[in-house]
Amino acid sequence: MNIYDISKKAGVSIATVSRVLNESGKVSEATRQKILSIIEETGYTPNAFARGLGLNTMNTIGILCADSSDPYLASAIYLLEQGLRSHGYDSLLCCTGYDHAAKKKYLDLLLSKRVDAVILVGSNFVEAEAEKNQYILEAAQEIPVIILNGYLEGEQIYCSLCDDYEALHASTRRFLESGRKRPLYLYRALSYSGQRKLAGFEDACRDLGLQREDFHSACVNGSIAETRDFLEALWEKNSFDVILTCDDEMGIGALKFARSHGISVPHELSILGYNNSKLALCCDPELSTIDNQLSFSCTNAISLLIRALEGEPVPARTVLSAKLIARGTTDEPFFSLI
Amino acid sequence: MNIYDISKKAGVSIATVSRVLNESGKVSEATRQKILSIIEETGYTPNAFARGLGLNTMNTIGILCADSSDPYLASAIYLLEQGLRSHGYDSLLCCTGYDHAAKKKYLDLLLSKRVDAVILVGSNFVEAEAEKNQYILEAAQEIPVIILNGYLEGEQIYCSLCDDYEALHASTRRFLESGRKRPLYLYRALSYSGQRKLAGFEDACRDLGLQREDFHSACVNGSIAETRDFLEALWEKNSFDVILTCDDEMGIGALKFARSHGISVPHELSILGYNNSKLALCCDPELSTIDNQLSFSCTNAISLLIRALEGEPVPARTVLSAKLIARGTTDEPFFSLI
Repeated sequence: MNIYDISKKAGVSIATVSRVLNESGKVSEATRQKILSIIEETGYTPNAFARGLGLNTMNTIGILCADSSDPYLASAIYLLEQGLRSHGYDSLLCCTGYDHAAKKKYLDLLLSKRVDAVILVGSNFVEAEAEKNQYILEAAQEIPVIILNGYLEGEQIYCSLCDDYEALHASTRRFLESGRKRPLYLYRALSYSGQRKLAGFEDACRDLGLQREDFHSACVNGSIAETRDFLEALWEKNSFDVILTCDDEMGIGALKFARSHGISVPHELSILGYNNSKLALCCDPELSTIDNQLSFSCTNAISLLIRALEGEPVPARTVLSAKLIARGTTDEPFFSLI
Repeated sequence: MNIYDISKKAGVSIATVSRVLNESGKVSEATRQKILSIIEETGYTPNAFARGLGLNTMNTIGILCADSSDPYLASAIYLLEQGLRSHGYDSLLCCTGYDHAAKKKYLDLLLSKRVDAVILVGSNFVEAEAEKNQYILEAAQEIPVIILNGYLEGEQIYCSLCDDYEALHASTRRFLESGRKRPLYLYRALSYSGQRKLAGFEDACRDLGLQREDFHSACVNGSIAETRDFLEALWEKNSFDVILTCDDEMGIGALKFARSHGISVPHELSILGYNNSKLALCCDPELSTIDNQLSFSCTNAISLLIRALEGEPVPARTVLSAKLIARGTTDEPFFSLI
């Protein structure tokens, strides 16, 4: 069944069928209904329409990610692409950068390419301001939208994410229970997962009876060297005995600072990264880090997507628990942490 | 001018125009010629055709890369995407993996999405076996093809690459001139740039009068830990005083090996990475490395592409020279190396 058959069956021109499918141009309501009922009857889809024109758009999934040079996002993209291919789907990826307008534009581009579904990779796609997420809700009216490591409520939106709150809460608690008294948490941005991590850290500090002046958090949006320099400046006013970070790059910056100041790690200072990326294996000692189960999360995202495309019921949210990887920058008894 | 105008002007149905554009279905030769001459007369393009159907395909560049989880390739993708956007182009990226059939399939997919040009990122797209590059030559008959860090000769193929041969030749020479006597070169694969690097290393060793038994190279396709373990096994039979590597990850593996064996770096053993990636900043001492000017190379690739799309003359090959970044794992007088 292709567009020619539809037009023949409806007794209208192909242009009319095309206008109905694209909701563009004038078509009488009666004709519109007639075409739509034939389409429904025959199971014909706009994808098949595009294929009929030689534009092969079937079995293609769009992937949006902010920044492929972020090693964490880059790994996710690769895992998703490989997983989708094993299910017979091709992927089209757009790297959007962090600008809101660009994200929106790229989602539109993927829709115009008639992808079967879209995966948004990274929590930075979900903004605190509800209005800014409108374009995602609109896309979800057309095709299933999977969000990896973010959460947004909406029809046909399915989220696969790590319990970042619990990961930060449990590890902070363990540090404090082991005798650490002056924790610092370093983060980059308050995306959905960024907020969850910070809340987990602060709640754990309060739960363990720390006073507001005894625990600190700071936003450092920079490289390894910038994190190190930031700590140089901060250290004059405060000293800390444990630094938790929102990613491994920042953890390594903290380790560099400790080394340049002759602070013994982990004896005087424990350092914990996040993401269990390749970077955490490069430093010496190797960085203890939180593994947010990216590989599982990607596998899960793909199975949500396949189910959604097959019209099966899909849970709106799947939350995986993180795992602590104890290496050389912590000596707390962490093995049973999470 | 859109497909409706073409069909009106030709006095035929849209379906007929579509069949001519897609070279599918039966159309009489007279009608075909009539439509083609109107198309030529009006400057109408298949892209505009697709746009007329609501498929916005103009100003979109396809990017193919083997593996976005490789930090070097991931950075290139990001730089290209940002650069293209500043020129008003969107990008569609496909991560192909290393399988030849998948690379071909994805290039076909991008062509079917009617991209204006394609950028192949990474030298692994150009195979030693000429037959395996046929699909690239065929794509270049339709649209301009830019190859980043690889070289393939062909009409409408434009290559932006780093002089990997000279980078390895010059650095090896400098190590030997400074008194190192037992060099080892570690590589992953013999892609185009892989071959150039190995040849640069071997030629420099021969040029400086080393005997064949005095210099070694080995293929290690593995992680940091696997590189370290590989060296453990190799070291029993040989010892080396300088290790050059094809990427920073391997350089860090060599550094880990040296540390676990109590070998002093750089005093007893010099280590040189390649790519100047983020990884090289994570270890301690930081890794000396070769900067193959990725950022320049991406900027250059984009300007080749823009010129090609505008019909300007474009050089088939642009070769940039590399730059040595001397950090803590070398003590040779490198500052004026390259």
